[in-house]
Amino acid sequence: MGKGSSGSGAGATERVFAALDGFRIEVPSWGFANTGTRFGKFSQAGAATSLEEKFEDAGQVNKLTGASPSVALHVLWDLPNGKGDVPELKRLEKKYGVKSGAVNPNLFQAQEYKYGSIANPSAEIRKHAVAHLLDSVEIGKALGNKDVSIWLADGSNYPGTQSMLKRIEWLEEALGETHAALGPKQRMLVEYKPFEPAFYHTDIADWGMALNLARKAGPKAKVLVDTGHHLPGCNIEQIVTWLLHLNALGGFHFNDRKFADDDLTLGSIDPYQLFRIFHEILVSDSPAVKGIAYMIDQSHNLKGKMEAMVQSVMTAQELFAKAALVDQAKLAKLQQSCSLVDAEEVFRGAFWTDVRPMVKEWREAHKLPSEPLEALKKGGYMEKINKERGAKNANSGSSYA
Amino acid sequence: MGKGSSGSGAGATERVFAALDGFRIEVPSWGFANTGTRFGKFSQAGAATSLEEKFEDAGQVNKLTGASPSVALHVLWDLPNGKGDVPELKRLEKKYGVKSGAVNPNLFQAQEYKYGSIANPSAEIRKHAVAHLLDSVEIGKALGNKDVSIWLADGSNYPGTQSMLKRIEWLEEALGETHAALGPKQRMLVEYKPFEPAFYHTDIADWGMALNLARKAGPKAKVLVDTGHHLPGCNIEQIVTWLLHLNALGGFHFNDRKFADDDLTLGSIDPYQLFRIFHEILVSDSPAVKGIAYMIDQSHNLKGKMEAMVQSVMTAQELFAKAALVDQAKLAKLQQSCSLVDAEEVFRGAFWTDVRPMVKEWREAHKLPSEPLEALKKGGYMEKINKERGAKNANSGSSYA
Amino acid sequence: MGKGSSGSGAGATERVFAALDGFRIEVPSWGFANTGTRFGKFSQAGAATSLEEKFEDAGQVNKLTGASPSVALHVLWDLPNGKGDVPELKRLEKKYGVKSGAVNPNLFQAQEYKYGSIANPSAEIRKHAVAHLLDSVEIGKALGNKDVSIWLADGSNYPGTQSMLKRIEWLEEALGETHAALGPKQRMLVEYKPFEPAFYHTDIADWGMALNLARKAGPKAKVLVDTGHHLPGCNIEQIVTWLLHLNALGGFHFNDRKFADDDLTLGSIDPYQLFRIFHEILVSDSPAVKGIAYMIDQSHNLKGKMEAMVQSVMTAQELFAKAALVDQAKLAKLQQSCSLVDAEEVFRGAFWTDVRPMVKEWREAHKLPSEPLEALKKGGYMEKINKERGAKNANSGSSYA
Amino acid sequence: MGKGSSGSGAGATERVFAALDGFRIEVPSWGFANTGTRFGKFSQAGAATSLEEKFEDAGQVNKLTGASPSVALHVLWDLPNGKGDVPELKRLEKKYGVKSGAVNPNLFQAQEYKYGSIANPSAEIRKHAVAHLLDSVEIGKALGNKDVSIWLADGSNYPGTQSMLKRIEWLEEALGETHAALGPKQRMLVEYKPFEPAFYHTDIADWGMALNLARKAGPKAKVLVDTGHHLPGCNIEQIVTWLLHLNALGGFHFNDRKFADDDLTLGSIDPYQLFRIFHEILVSDSPAVKGIAYMIDQSHNLKGKMEAMVQSVMTAQELFAKAALVDQAKLAKLQQSCSLVDAEEVFRGAFWTDVRPMVKEWREAHKLPSEPLEALKKGGYMEKINKERGAKNANSGSSYA
Repeated sequence: MGKGSSGSGAGATERVFAALDGFRIEVPSWGFANTGTRFGKFSQAGAATSLEEKFEDAGQVNKLTGASPSVALHVLWDLPNGKGDVPELKRLEKKYGVKSGAVNPNLFQAQEYKYGSIANPSAEIRKHAVAHLLDSVEIGKALGNKDVSIWLADGSNYPGTQSMLKRIEWLEEALGETHAALGPKQRMLVEYKPFEPAFYHTDIADWGMALNLARKAGPKAKVLVDTGHHLPGCNIEQIVTWLLHLNALGGFHFNDRKFADDDLTLGSIDPYQLFRIFHEILVSDSPAVKGIAYMIDQSHNLKGKMEAMVQSVMTAQELFAKAALVDQAKLAKLQQSCSLVDAEEVFRGAFWTDVRPMVKEWREAHKLPSEPLEALKKGGYMEKINKERGAKNANSGSSYA
Repeated sequence: MGKGSSGSGAGATERVFAALDGFRIEVPSWGFANTGTRFGKFSQAGAATSLEEKFEDAGQVNKLTGASPSVALHVLWDLPNGKGDVPELKRLEKKYGVKSGAVNPNLFQAQEYKYGSIANPSAEIRKHAVAHLLDSVEIGKALGNKDVSIWLADGSNYPGTQSMLKRIEWLEEALGETHAALGPKQRMLVEYKPFEPAFYHTDIADWGMALNLARKAGPKAKVLVDTGHHLPGCNIEQIVTWLLHLNALGGFHFNDRKFADDDLTLGSIDPYQLFRIFHEILVSDSPAVKGIAYMIDQSHNLKGKMEAMVQSVMTAQELFAKAALVDQAKLAKLQQSCSLVDAEEVFRGAFWTDVRPMVKEWREAHKLPSEPLEALKKGGYMEKINKERGAKNANSGSSYA
Repeated sequence: MGKGSSGSGAGATERVFAALDGFRIEVPSWGFANTGTRFGKFSQAGAATSLEEKFEDAGQVNKLTGASPSVALHVLWDLPNGKGDVPELKRLEKKYGVKSGAVNPNLFQAQEYKYGSIANPSAEIRKHAVAHLLDSVEIGKALGNKDVSIWLADGSNYPGTQSMLKRIEWLEEALGETHAALGPKQRMLVEYKPFEPAFYHTDIADWGMALNLARKAGPKAKVLVDTGHHLPGCNIEQIVTWLLHLNALGGFHFNDRKFADDDLTLGSIDPYQLFRIFHEILVSDSPAVKGIAYMIDQSHNLKGKMEAMVQSVMTAQELFAKAALVDQAKLAKLQQSCSLVDAEEVFRGAFWTDVRPMVKEWREAHKLPSEPLEALKKGGYMEKINKERGAKNANSGSSYA
Repeated sequence: MGKGSSGSGAGATERVFAALDGFRIEVPSWGFANTGTRFGKFSQAGAATSLEEKFEDAGQVNKLTGASPSVALHVLWDLPNGKGDVPELKRLEKKYGVKSGAVNPNLFQAQEYKYGSIANPSAEIRKHAVAHLLDSVEIGKALGNKDVSIWLADGSNYPGTQSMLKRIEWLEEALGETHAALGPKQRMLVEYKPFEPAFYHTDIADWGMALNLARKAGPKAKVLVDTGHHLPGCNIEQIVTWLLHLNALGGFHFNDRKFADDDLTLGSIDPYQLFRIFHEILVSDSPAVKGIAYMIDQSHNLKGKMEAMVQSVMTAQELFAKAALVDQAKLAKLQQSCSLVDAEEVFRGAFWTDVRPMVKEWREAHKLPSEPLEALKKGGYMEKINKERGAKNANSGSSYA
């Protein structure tokens, strides 16, 4: 490491502060509810089981971190009455000081979607699925032009059992129809995933497919990158670079993984990778940058819900801060001259820098708890919800809602 | 392909008949019940929801194929009263003409196993888990010295959160205790799996770990290979060869996969691989060969339960028959002389041979339906169970039991 | 398997004959030369070391199979004098009865390409690399409007050492310039590869990147799919379906793999996958189908060069014939009704059908040796080249040329 | 992060100093020579092309870092005259102040090893290969009871072409013979690798196979872990824990990778993983710990040889220092109580701590350059060797030696 390694300069704190000032990350309502794997679900006493509890939790996370002012919604679980639930949502927004975020339709849980939703061979089921998408668009409008964030479980489990080709056409049709209904400021985010729950082919399997579908649908359709939705070895930051270059990046679902779509807390397995993703965003001058929706999408099977969420927001901030420490001008020169070792040291010098003290300063400067996790543990909130919600969770069934 | 390619010789049918005469594959009771992924479970009208229905289904599969005379049991789901359910099991065995098979403890579903069962840091929980293993051993004895087949979900999700080392010692202790309780003819099968539901470390992650634990436990402990439980690219047939060489192979859980532990029907993604596994068994002179327990372990989310099971037994028979067609003497010579292309053509010449007509002949010779899948569809059994069980399944919850 | 399983019908032979009549696969000149891994290269006595020997070998393969009438060329190794070598090539075409095929530039071997060719930060090196591409276009024109098939090794080995973003722009520039030089009937094929020889990022890493670059370059640019160039688990046939749907598929480099880009002979590891790829082509009505260039691209480290090539052409024919046996109308109905098991049986029933006798008939009908591999071994050609070329190869160095 | 996060305590520097005092890492002679991929080799002006140059370079690395006092030797490349080269080696040891390290036989490069070395079907070739192993043992003895470190490229490329079973027996025989020749203080390290250069099966593919072979060979045989030799997703630190538990860990070959055996510089892709490996060693009380041989084994295709090596030693020291900062007592308690988030924060709190200042202090306390990379660049050594060796390298062929 050279003595002039990144992060040690006078402007380091300023850069970190500026980066943190501009960084907000949305939490998912379902991140506060009990979740599990196909082998079972472990209940937590304090898990949220109502929309109000989810907002209460999200509000608490934001109070502690100051960086998560919105909550992604899941239509099926959070708005069982569709648009009819919007007034209640607005009440909760006010009460808990966090806004509604992206609207997530659910096209995978109903029995009719066994063989697919908008890519189902049955025209009737496709119509039904599109109706749900259109409802989601309307909910988004009612909530104030929110993004509609589409993840499809559609696919097939065995070679030859479905026509991959026809399903592409059905997808194009449904997404086109949905795009047509979007309000002037709404966007449609198209997510991709290589496998699970479909185990042979997934209709939107990679960023290339998502991008082509988004383009076909229209200019308000963008691609959503879930960091857990890639094959082993995939260079995700390169995909991010491409999507920025093509002005087609809409947002992220952050989580981490070692094997499949493990949905672990972000940065817990490969923190260097998330640092690299943030770096690609910070060096980009794509118009897409300002529209990026940063969202957490994790499944806290074992970690405490509240702890996991606060920890995740903190980790995201810290890795973003590290990325902000990269001396971009110096790096660009070293990249241009192919000074590999020097370039690498400048780059990862920022990663090695312990930014926790700087992030702590930033929190203090914003009248936030300097140690949000500590504050959470000492603040009594977890005891409160464990007590209040314990009985309900003891009898909880297995639904994700 | 040389003109003398495998399978065309006079002895081909004889070899196939002999192979099929000696090939039996156990079906799992849970293969007839509704299953799903973490994203939901799709109910089937005809899915079994009671032990009797599972035996009825298994009996039907065996009637059609003549090759699946036993049913693997799942203690928690099938014997909620433990040994107390044995008399009922014996009644079902008689009534439906299929025997009880391997006894599968369940150490992953109860809330207390959130952080592990026999590798849990809590001594109390470990004790509880061992008690379940010992109960399973007793059930096995009561059923006639059945194998106890152990799969553990134990592991951790985040680096540093558990001591991998201590957990090894706890495993050794628990498996040793279980081994000590085995009857003289009982065996303990130790299964391994690289990930899921644990997403950072799984306590028994590969065959090396399973083997060391089995050896430590005692001579009646053997390794069980689940074909879906390997990292991408793993050469499973080589592991089989090693386990045979070390006289440590106890049995198989067959299924197929493209990505993770997809639990698709066997041979549906990579049939050539299963052919190769069978070949390694057929060329082996290990004493372990005669003790191999062939079992199906699949999750039929989308395929019809009965169809999937009959199809699986048929596919296993066909691939076993293909492996039996390999001209071993000729192959050995070509391997010795490193005649790669010739060796490969002899080897895969058997795979290319269409054995379906021979297997059909074998069935007819044994008074079995020549086309089991056709017979299933025309025989009225599926209509019957769909009708009888439909109402129950319409209201089914999400338990795997 | 139902009794009406695919392939047994009256029209089976006709379908296979028609399929084979339309199927031609190009062999690569470098497939006859000594190759190896980074750990060393094993010489073969009969390996080709001159362009004439490569044409002689290719001519022999085509004589035996009747299905490989063209030879892919490698500019650096085969045309050291660029366009100046075209007259010699025309002489060889006439002499050995095989045509020149795709023109493959080489942008990875020269020392100056250490940090990239057309994506190199140095404008001078980029210019030099583009010049080689333009030369290749000219060679293609001189040979009769041949495809220029571009594979780039460009990438980086360590995070942060190169600007992935700038390199995209440099690629776009260079490919645009090359496209502009194409003759009216020429095409530019853009290949992708996830890794090797670059081990952190490869500039054209997947089909999405290749497609975007091709589109940016112009309408004569198409994507080339090398079956070995995908991450573990990737569903290649789905990518093929997408590229056909988008009218963007230009051709294939066939080979097989278990781990990385192993460059094994096609169909040797996962023959079912290649069958599925062929099926997607056969069911497609994309205008791209008629332009698909089928090419072999393998590295025969251990198998005999001539044997491996003849075997590969035969395997490609057999798997193509199997795919032609799929009863498409029946399958489409079963896919539409989501009759999974029936659809799968129709689909893979074709795969299980032993087409070797039909392919043999086709050969006989075309006055070709009915058993090309046998004919090769008995025909004396291998003895001849081993003898003629043995001395040269004994002293061969380690160049790939 | 709790305020009492690891590394901030008073004892932090002491722990780091103690850790660094005990940490030595061997450099490989071949790490200073030109290397490449199968697509070509990029020459470096200053690359070493003689044994003396390799020792000179290694001496320089040790002078700068004080942590790499020995050089792993490659018999074929470094000791072409076998034991006859030992006197020269001893001269170089004295002259450059670094000792000879592990002796690495080469059983993959000679033409005769095309189909394997000690697992070759030819008894004659096996005998020849064993002779080379025995020579290596003798060299090791002559150099002072050095470890013989065995990596085999043996395997096969196509299913069915070799008998995996027979090859196990041949391996056992050869390794047993080699073990019998070991001196009283010598050890035999058995390395494993899943693939490359063999692409279907590798005879020693995983730690389970290596362990069984080592045990069969005898008590002086231990397993060597090369961090690049695992399938995607493999939890390497768990294997390390098992090998320590079984008292069977002999040493490491460190490098990093994103895809296959990429041989990148250690810690460059997944530094958190190497930290975790070091942690497992530091918490272990296995007798194997004190015998662990830490070695670098990388292929610096693009990075400057000297820079890459100095950087690697520094990175190893820094990650080892981070691991030494983990508060083991605190962590053990949190692991026991399954306080996941707290345990993780203690664990990775050490990883986040910037240890560079402490390592710098340690260097200064040992009269070493505080910034070895800087010192290397400014010291003139690279200019010197670039100048002295430039001409030779300009004409260098492609041998690895």
